[in-house]
Amino acid sequence: MNDQHIASAFDRDLEAIQAQIMKMGGLVEAAILEAASSLEARDEERAEKVRAADKQIDALEELINEEAARVIALRAPTAIDLRLILSVMKISGNLERIGDYAKNMAKRTGVLAQMAPVNDSAGALRRMAKEVGKMLTDALDAYINRDAELALDVIARDAEVDQMYNALFREFLTFMMEDPRNITACMHLHFIGKNTERMGDHVTSIAEQVVYLVTGMHPDEARAKADTTSMKL
Amino acid sequence: MNDQHIASAFDRDLEAIQAQIMKMGGLVEAAILEAASSLEARDEERAEKVRAADKQIDALEELINEEAARVIALRAPTAIDLRLILSVMKISGNLERIGDYAKNMAKRTGVLAQMAPVNDSAGALRRMAKEVGKMLTDALDAYINRDAELALDVIARDAEVDQMYNALFREFLTFMMEDPRNITACMHLHFIGKNTERMGDHVTSIAEQVVYLVTGMHPDEARAKADTTSMKL
Repeated sequence: MNDQHIASAFDRDLEAIQAQIMKMGGLVEAAILEAASSLEARDEERAEKVRAADKQIDALEELINEEAARVIALRAPTAIDLRLILSVMKISGNLERIGDYAKNMAKRTGVLAQMAPVNDSAGALRRMAKEVGKMLTDALDAYINRDAELALDVIARDAEVDQMYNALFREFLTFMMEDPRNITACMHLHFIGKNTERMGDHVTSIAEQVVYLVTGMHPDEARAKADTTSMKL
Repeated sequence: MNDQHIASAFDRDLEAIQAQIMKMGGLVEAAILEAASSLEARDEERAEKVRAADKQIDALEELINEEAARVIALRAPTAIDLRLILSVMKISGNLERIGDYAKNMAKRTGVLAQMAPVNDSAGALRRMAKEVGKMLTDALDAYINRDAELALDVIARDAEVDQMYNALFREFLTFMMEDPRNITACMHLHFIGKNTERMGDHVTSIAEQVVYLVTGMHPDEARAKADTTSMKL
């Protein structure tokens, strides 16, 4: 009876924290899309809003970590419960990093707005960011529904994001070689592309944790992929 | 008496895990220095050894996290003890990321060895890596000795690493503009520089956790700094 009581109390705590994770995920997804759209529209005001909103994301991460530590101290969970509560900390960390990359993209918008646009690079970056945003939605759905299949699908889709990045990288190299005046802008655009590709890696890490939580196994496909792409610029 | 027993049992567990952290830190520091020296010497064989050694670092991180989870489940630590054991997980995560950057540097050595050297860039990168290695040693000493003052010193020194990176970045930009044939090599070298600067950020994050563990406060200097540098390429 007492065990039952403790168990359900833990479940309520966990649900409350997971609700915060979903809220944080929503803010991060909005930041990704809004940062990419502001870049394409060369709209510094909208970009500034993205930068300001990152403080809320950071505050949520701190709140989630404090809550998780409180629950561990209060409920002393073991085995799967402990693994669940620890994964909450890892996932909020991934979300915080993705938010930082979106904020960085927004900061570069101010610099790039002063330079001549380089072809449709900003449009290609927005499409890439949109894909990462979709992956994030699915990764968090997979987490809440303990859906390993959807999580593995997210992990597989990260390869497409890597391909988009590699295509962009070759394009930037060409633009720089064609006209040295493009070099500075291309360096910024390239960093935005690389950071967006890293966002995809953090989403993949969330999906990997879901697979581990549900199946108890580390998805090797993801490991192998991470290894073969780590050489790319 | 029983409390006493439990407390000292936790202390023994924590000490054992901290010993693993120090071992992992030693391997990561060696990886940083060896990767940078191999790059300067254009020695692919030594670089290959660094890549192989990263597996050991990843395995240690997994071991440390499993051990920490086991201790939490077994000892149900609260308050400061819980904060200590959770920090172990965060620090091993930082060390693993630093190891990945060193591995990535080693992988690029193979590519760069095929290209003409760009000035003394590799030497400058090695000096930067050496500085980050020193910061890591001090950050881990600060952690083991709960030395907030040394940790704050490490955080302050990260600004020097950022300056080294910014100087390199301007240099690479010049080399690329002077001769488009330098662009591909400079993109690789620039990424190595950026990743080394990121290693410094992870060392700083370890130092920040030490300050928080010892003083209970987040070092604002570090926060402010992180914000002003996030705009840099």
